[in-house]
Amino acid sequence: MPEANIPARILMGPGPSNVHARVYQAMSAPTLGHMDPLYFKLMDETQALMREAFQTKNELTLALPVTGMGAMEACLVNLVEPGDDVLICVNGVFSGRMPEIAERYGAKVAKLSVPWGQSAKPEQIAEALKKQPAKLVALVHGETSTGVMQSNLGEIAKICHDHGALLLVDTVASLGGSVFKSDDWGVDAVYTGSQKCLGVPPGISPVSFGKRAEEKLAKRKSKVTSWYMDLTLIRKYWNEERAYHHTGPINMTYALLEGLKLIHEEGLDARSARHAKMAKALYAGLEAMGLQLFVKNPADRLPTVTTVLIPAGADDAKVRKTLLDQHSLEIGGGLGELKGKGWRVGLMGEGAKPNHVLLFLSALGGILKAQGASGVKPGAGVEAAAAVING
Amino acid sequence: MPEANIPARILMGPGPSNVHARVYQAMSAPTLGHMDPLYFKLMDETQALMREAFQTKNELTLALPVTGMGAMEACLVNLVEPGDDVLICVNGVFSGRMPEIAERYGAKVAKLSVPWGQSAKPEQIAEALKKQPAKLVALVHGETSTGVMQSNLGEIAKICHDHGALLLVDTVASLGGSVFKSDDWGVDAVYTGSQKCLGVPPGISPVSFGKRAEEKLAKRKSKVTSWYMDLTLIRKYWNEERAYHHTGPINMTYALLEGLKLIHEEGLDARSARHAKMAKALYAGLEAMGLQLFVKNPADRLPTVTTVLIPAGADDAKVRKTLLDQHSLEIGGGLGELKGKGWRVGLMGEGAKPNHVLLFLSALGGILKAQGASGVKPGAGVEAAAAVING
Repeated sequence: MPEANIPARILMGPGPSNVHARVYQAMSAPTLGHMDPLYFKLMDETQALMREAFQTKNELTLALPVTGMGAMEACLVNLVEPGDDVLICVNGVFSGRMPEIAERYGAKVAKLSVPWGQSAKPEQIAEALKKQPAKLVALVHGETSTGVMQSNLGEIAKICHDHGALLLVDTVASLGGSVFKSDDWGVDAVYTGSQKCLGVPPGISPVSFGKRAEEKLAKRKSKVTSWYMDLTLIRKYWNEERAYHHTGPINMTYALLEGLKLIHEEGLDARSARHAKMAKALYAGLEAMGLQLFVKNPADRLPTVTTVLIPAGADDAKVRKTLLDQHSLEIGGGLGELKGKGWRVGLMGEGAKPNHVLLFLSALGGILKAQGASGVKPGAGVEAAAAVING
Repeated sequence: MPEANIPARILMGPGPSNVHARVYQAMSAPTLGHMDPLYFKLMDETQALMREAFQTKNELTLALPVTGMGAMEACLVNLVEPGDDVLICVNGVFSGRMPEIAERYGAKVAKLSVPWGQSAKPEQIAEALKKQPAKLVALVHGETSTGVMQSNLGEIAKICHDHGALLLVDTVASLGGSVFKSDDWGVDAVYTGSQKCLGVPPGISPVSFGKRAEEKLAKRKSKVTSWYMDLTLIRKYWNEERAYHHTGPINMTYALLEGLKLIHEEGLDARSARHAKMAKALYAGLEAMGLQLFVKNPADRLPTVTTVLIPAGADDAKVRKTLLDQHSLEIGGGLGELKGKGWRVGLMGEGAKPNHVLLFLSALGGILKAQGASGVKPGAGVEAAAAVING
């Protein structure tokens, strides 16, 4: 299959999302050497725009040559030493992977299990830390597997600090698509992926550590187990030392920089408002169509990924296959507890646009009706969404 | 700096190398989802061509979403359990990183130190294994830091197996630019990078494990410390299970596939012959110009990276800066022991062409002459190289 035959998908799954033409163009600029002074200049620009996206002044801000899961592991392996107590809020597949990874690196993990579809309450975290102190609390801001957003991060950070713990936050599915204020909220360490709301192909991942997290690195008694992910080494490639560690993923860095420029040009406030409005249109459309959202509490809803329950009479796999074959439109199936029970619909970056919302609702509605799913009203769904879009 | 201003460098450092236009074009095809059936098809095609490039039938052959250093770590973390004895042949910066990484994962490392500029002799490895048995022997096929190629890999593999050890080989700087026969030689585990002789931008790394290495994975008593690099999990994304592990680096996979297609079209034999001829032209040119090669024994020379000693009277940094500013031509400075003493000149993939050899020799000769370096004869160098090219 030559690449000329790769179709332009409408990517409405839980990521990757659609990529702006400017990002493709930047990505295919000529490869520079990883020690070229011009590449260092691009690294600096990328670093400045990553800080803006994270809303931080953290010096230790860089992009890792890994996917989002690699960034999760990188943060944990740097912040955890064998024997450390770690508290992890688990309410989905991605937060559920954190204990597994932290334990492989020797952490003693306590899990705060929250039912899928809900987020952790600050007082639950305070209680858990009272019961079993921890050096690190880790949680996911936007759970891609459920469509839940963890709110009250500022309050949670304060609780963590009051108990002597650092707060690590996964923003893979949320950064660039919802409000996130690392410094204002007091987040100690944060990472994201490229392929969701940053609108860049997958394979490069921004990470940022604040002063408290840096202190943890400086005071470690043991080396970071992973050499490849050792931020103390990698930062020397990103700062004025320019010490060679790995070969920078040159063209992916071009792509990330261009994606971040697009965010800068749009402005973070306008961008999160756009995502919020498109999510609202999607919710209105799905509900008016007669479908149910998985996340009941509107305050817990992640604007960038929505889980909708599969109605009676619909054939999960066939619906998704028809969307792909007929409309070149991808949505995500359910993961874990939600397998066969929910669909995950992404509205991220370039994809958080009115045309995606309306096309998805009208296409899904038609397919469900053709399958004889009970009580589905496609027209009402499209009308309700359009009203929000034009409201 | 907008990407339109990124200059087309002549990349003659130790990697990244120049990228064919078809690879850039493939890389910027529309991003597919990582669970899209069309993407799975591209993964299968990539896998088949990786097997061809490694000259193997190994089922466990896949591309990792990391750079070459990540692939080194991935192989070590999968093959090493805490307390395992490991023998590492160290003759440069990259082989010198292996003990550091293996030790972080709990290996008991014995080093077979070989002087820089030379490769290990099979009998030295046999002797080292007699003295201290090991479960794994690791070495670098093409040492990018010195320009040494480790020959006799078939013989070395036999020695390893006779002593109950597996053989892990780093081919980051050699695969696709010199003869490598994984199955014929009996190599148990091998990895490479994308940005050298495969002619693809950096950030994705092929890895292949044979039956003996698979057995080691199956018999491990402990989990692989790294979840992100756990090949037992990752292979399920590459085989028919298609179990989600990480988000595939979609566009980098397109690029890798296209790079591998170019290799397939050229043919491995023709390609290694081309690299060998260009290296020969470079050696002839440098020596006729009055310069000295660092690697004295021709049998130890890596055709893809050549280290030439800096002549008296030349200013290392100024020569490299002038090449870059005047000709947009990058070569590498010396690493480690060779810092300030040698230049590393890459002839890899698209870069292993007559135009690169002649331009480099004529440019370098002119600059050295202008700097007053002693006894430099640029014209003789260019003539000698042209004679090999046209011979």
